[in-house]
Amino acid sequence: MSAQTDVHTPPVRFDSTDLAVDPAELGEFLLGRYVEIRRHARSVCAHPDMWKIEGQPMPEHRQRVFGQLKRLADSGVVHLAFPSIVGGGENPGGNIASFEQIVLADPSLQIKSGVQWGLFGAAVMHLGTEEHHRKWLPGIMSLEIPGAFAMTETGHGSDVASIATTATYDLDTDEFVIHTPHRGAWKDYIGNAAQHGRAAVVFAQLIVEGENHGVHALYVPLRDDNGFLPGIGGDDDGYKGGLNGIDNGRLHFTNVRVPRENLLNRYGSVNSDGVYSSPIESRGRRFFTILGTLVQGRVSLVGASTVASQLASTIGIRYSLERRQFPIPGSSEEHVLMDYQQHQRRLIPRLANTYAMVFAQEVLLELFHQVFSGQADTEEHRQDLETLAAALKPYATWSALDIIQANREACGGQGFLAENRLAGLRADLDVYATFEGDNTVLLQLVAKRLLGDYARQFAKGDLGVMAGYVADQVGEAAVNRSGLRRLAQNVVDFGSTARSIGYVRSTASQRQLLTDRVATMVASLAESLKPASKLPPEQAAELMNAHQHELIEAAWAHSELVVWEAFTEALSRYEDGPTKQVLRWLRDLHGFVLIEKHRDWYLMNGRLSAHRAEAITQYINNRLLPRLRPHLKSLVDAFEPSDDLVRAPIALGEEAKRQEEARAYEGSSLKQ
Amino acid sequence: MSAQTDVHTPPVRFDSTDLAVDPAELGEFLLGRYVEIRRHARSVCAHPDMWKIEGQPMPEHRQRVFGQLKRLADSGVVHLAFPSIVGGGENPGGNIASFEQIVLADPSLQIKSGVQWGLFGAAVMHLGTEEHHRKWLPGIMSLEIPGAFAMTETGHGSDVASIATTATYDLDTDEFVIHTPHRGAWKDYIGNAAQHGRAAVVFAQLIVEGENHGVHALYVPLRDDNGFLPGIGGDDDGYKGGLNGIDNGRLHFTNVRVPRENLLNRYGSVNSDGVYSSPIESRGRRFFTILGTLVQGRVSLVGASTVASQLASTIGIRYSLERRQFPIPGSSEEHVLMDYQQHQRRLIPRLANTYAMVFAQEVLLELFHQVFSGQADTEEHRQDLETLAAALKPYATWSALDIIQANREACGGQGFLAENRLAGLRADLDVYATFEGDNTVLLQLVAKRLLGDYARQFAKGDLGVMAGYVADQVGEAAVNRSGLRRLAQNVVDFGSTARSIGYVRSTASQRQLLTDRVATMVASLAESLKPASKLPPEQAAELMNAHQHELIEAAWAHSELVVWEAFTEALSRYEDGPTKQVLRWLRDLHGFVLIEKHRDWYLMNGRLSAHRAEAITQYINNRLLPRLRPHLKSLVDAFEPSDDLVRAPIALGEEAKRQEEARAYEGSSLKQ
Repeated sequence: MSAQTDVHTPPVRFDSTDLAVDPAELGEFLLGRYVEIRRHARSVCAHPDMWKIEGQPMPEHRQRVFGQLKRLADSGVVHLAFPSIVGGGENPGGNIASFEQIVLADPSLQIKSGVQWGLFGAAVMHLGTEEHHRKWLPGIMSLEIPGAFAMTETGHGSDVASIATTATYDLDTDEFVIHTPHRGAWKDYIGNAAQHGRAAVVFAQLIVEGENHGVHALYVPLRDDNGFLPGIGGDDDGYKGGLNGIDNGRLHFTNVRVPRENLLNRYGSVNSDGVYSSPIESRGRRFFTILGTLVQGRVSLVGASTVASQLASTIGIRYSLERRQFPIPGSSEEHVLMDYQQHQRRLIPRLANTYAMVFAQEVLLELFHQVFSGQADTEEHRQDLETLAAALKPYATWSALDIIQANREACGGQGFLAENRLAGLRADLDVYATFEGDNTVLLQLVAKRLLGDYARQFAKGDLGVMAGYVADQVGEAAVNRSGLRRLAQNVVDFGSTARSIGYVRSTASQRQLLTDRVATMVASLAESLKPASKLPPEQAAELMNAHQHELIEAAWAHSELVVWEAFTEALSRYEDGPTKQVLRWLRDLHGFVLIEKHRDWYLMNGRLSAHRAEAITQYINNRLLPRLRPHLKSLVDAFEPSDDLVRAPIALGEEAKRQEEARAYEGSSLKQ
Repeated sequence: MSAQTDVHTPPVRFDSTDLAVDPAELGEFLLGRYVEIRRHARSVCAHPDMWKIEGQPMPEHRQRVFGQLKRLADSGVVHLAFPSIVGGGENPGGNIASFEQIVLADPSLQIKSGVQWGLFGAAVMHLGTEEHHRKWLPGIMSLEIPGAFAMTETGHGSDVASIATTATYDLDTDEFVIHTPHRGAWKDYIGNAAQHGRAAVVFAQLIVEGENHGVHALYVPLRDDNGFLPGIGGDDDGYKGGLNGIDNGRLHFTNVRVPRENLLNRYGSVNSDGVYSSPIESRGRRFFTILGTLVQGRVSLVGASTVASQLASTIGIRYSLERRQFPIPGSSEEHVLMDYQQHQRRLIPRLANTYAMVFAQEVLLELFHQVFSGQADTEEHRQDLETLAAALKPYATWSALDIIQANREACGGQGFLAENRLAGLRADLDVYATFEGDNTVLLQLVAKRLLGDYARQFAKGDLGVMAGYVADQVGEAAVNRSGLRRLAQNVVDFGSTARSIGYVRSTASQRQLLTDRVATMVASLAESLKPASKLPPEQAAELMNAHQHELIEAAWAHSELVVWEAFTEALSRYEDGPTKQVLRWLRDLHGFVLIEKHRDWYLMNGRLSAHRAEAITQYINNRLLPRLRPHLKSLVDAFEPSDDLVRAPIALGEEAKRQEEARAYEGSSLKQ
């Protein structure tokens, strides 16, 4: 017999319409620490010259974006991260806060600017020394030197350590010789490579006196006014699934020589005697330090995905609040789409997730800023940042695709028209899931960190006994710093099954359910993988592979927890009042939907009874959604969606106007 | 404590490599009843002139598709459904089997041909009489008259009954006057409307002597060589999220007059005295009969989605069998992507689903053919067909998007390049989820039918008592006819919880789990909605709305069941041998993944123990996936993916060639 019949929540509506959300105040709160920087970047993006022209053919689109890039350079909104000695703002967090808004203009422009300043420029900044900065950064900042970040090869994407391009030191001429040995070693998918790039930071195996010191980066001029320089060739990646305003392409090098000084040598130098040295002894750590600069791209994508989700939610929800379809029985009116339960189910939880992402990005940005501004640039903070970015980048990019798609489908045929932007946004953001670290690969990094933390914690304990778990409550500081709540919550107290829906409603209980799940999954994995340490490498890898799916599930559960924590932490900071009440429902909805999604786990592990698991769905559908329903307009208005940023006609009252016209016609025809 | 540690299935590989799948024999089987027709259509699509040029600008793309359309007309592959008196094949099932292949050429071409022959032509055929057929079908078939199917309006998509365009009979001139009263009544999203359409079947409220007889269809000339005819205007829908080879547009009519004979009057006529008559008395039934012609479009989309899923699976799986990334510990080789468990988890269940869809489409096509060929054109069969199409269209279109996307992501950056087709396929098929009946709306139709069947069955029983459920095993005939297995399986015997994984492995148990879920959900819904019959319409609608999410879930569960049944029925027909063994694993995987997905329900309702629910995942990951792994190449080869149909370079050995080159280089550099 179905539990549904027992725990049925009658569809009586709790009237929440007397609560008034203050969108202006909430909007300010959402813009967070970087409120002014974000508003300024938006104002730059709001100019019609910066708008994406949907459906513009690729060649014109590329040209347009290149022109817009120049405009960004002139506006200075892309210079916030650079050193003050070259006129930068030395504000790494603010820089990303600014960057993430550019998706509102055109995702192609955003990613192209990410290539120029976030990858190419940032590589010179982070991997080079002051001499390099003075020499190249001014031209990079002004766009005098459009450049490429030439790391990925056709043969090796996620596995950077295996790239095959070489940079061999030639003692006789004091130069490096850059060489592409075969087709698989061509640099591929490189933004700015097909057309606009004048130079590139090229990643290659650094070979000195026959010895390979691993992957390093070199500054390599690519083109002058006459095209490619001698020894350099390439190819156009051509039309892509989206982001066609960017000239992605391929590059190959045939014994191309650059001066020794072009090695970006912060983490590895070669002197004129041909002697290699590095401040980081371990080759592995050096590699990960050099790759550490990539974290900026991941942080940026979390922000971009969040802003895109805000835009998509705004368009979908505004249209759904105006569009009517099917008559209300016993009335001459038609239902507004948003009054349908299924429509609420599709869009409101995704709005909650959008809010959660806004807060999660703020936590990530704070940690990023602390590390990259030097305020807290320790190894531990860097590792926390890596892990948090690796957890949030998959979460945010996949969530954005999900949010955009749900809103596009909720708008029906209108959603498919390019002018309403959802389809283009979906296409452009598609690749966010696989570039800058494939989501699946990143989640495995997270899982390894979780397992590592777990092992350290229990280095001398009995891994198999979960009941031995010691409560290790950590202060807010640790949570805020890393977004990584220590997993050892006091699950001891939790043993019994949740007995009431009231129980699940509390913040502490939601936290416990979400945390306990991660902790238990990690413990179980640690137990399963325990034999690996005693196995030969092949067999250890095989054992790991046999649990790869679980590893990724555990990492994802961790991402969910971190995002929920961010929402909760933000909620705790909000001033008491009706807006906070509505925000709490939104956070509860977010938590409930997560718990509902993993009901199977909670049931299998005795954390929820069947009765309560069922009640969660009823509570979502017949309590939380109706309560939030009257506040949707305010909740998207808080995103400060000005007309020149939203632009989609269906989100700007087009539909309401048509309905008025229809009503006027019907009225007049009745009178006749 | 996690159940995972208890029921751990060790990752020992069952070696299934000694089984040889016969792709040729399996391929023949997959092509089903219409094997020759399908192969012929594919051969037409394989010609380079028929290929989509990815990234082609919209104007050129539209022109190219129009030229290809002419080629299709000349080939005759689109005339199979038409009456023999005008040279058609009178083979409705074969016609769709042919049509569904065109997605391999270009989805725009497929949908444009669907507009011309499947909607515009089919409307003349199904809603008109012999006189209309003789007059217009030859020109429609030859493409002399490119035409539009003008039903949807900007203001009303899913709710066709509320369209506002009128066709008013003028007794004085013996004409109908077609009129668009306001902007919301413009015909919108209409294929062939923006450019190529010379005529249209226009749906309008038929008004005779001041009385509205509801929605009817009229044949209306649109353009001559000089453009729109007097009184007709329109607009271009412009760039869309996909399908940009089709000239979707808007149309409006200002007192446009057509002769009385242009009313397609099979289901409703007006004589020259201005008297309306219809062979169908009930206005509601008449409306649904007229709309019944739309079922053909839905059946077509199931087929198109299936073929697109075959293509996507072929591309993703072939690349994953060649592409290598990350070294195998203790080896100089790198792992093939498909050896990673998570990669298997992403792609193999979706291949299983693709197979399931192939078989489900065959069941649907059989029923469609029986109804539309007149072999079994009864009211009951029509209703079964409507319901089955309403269940499978959402299933197939959403599954296709999911399958294409998973394969695109599994191919990383290569998957995003347009030349590898996955991104374009995803974009083109996106709108399949919301056109030809929005998926969410169709699932509600299914739910209503399920509730209706349930109510009839228990008209005099006690709805609240599930235990009273009577076993009503139906013969294969009924299953084959409608794909609707009667829901009243003998759940009485099922009371106890499944105790072993062996239990779940049997076909009967999978069926029982899936069937029982639908039956229980429907029964529970019926109970919840029982009060509706005694409530005033507004309140009844509100009660219904409070369960809308559950209604849609129940309908979706039914879709899953029907598709699983189709796979199982096909398996039972397959000759014993190794191919059948592998197909059985594939079907088991399909069933297990469905049960795993709904574990929460099975647990909440006491149908599976926690232990067994967990064992299902282990069995999928560590038994079924490794067993299927060696047969993936054969399983996609069975789709008969010729190079000129696949075209994506990554699916045609490009990557293997690069790796050979890299290996040759590494070998030679070692020798140096």
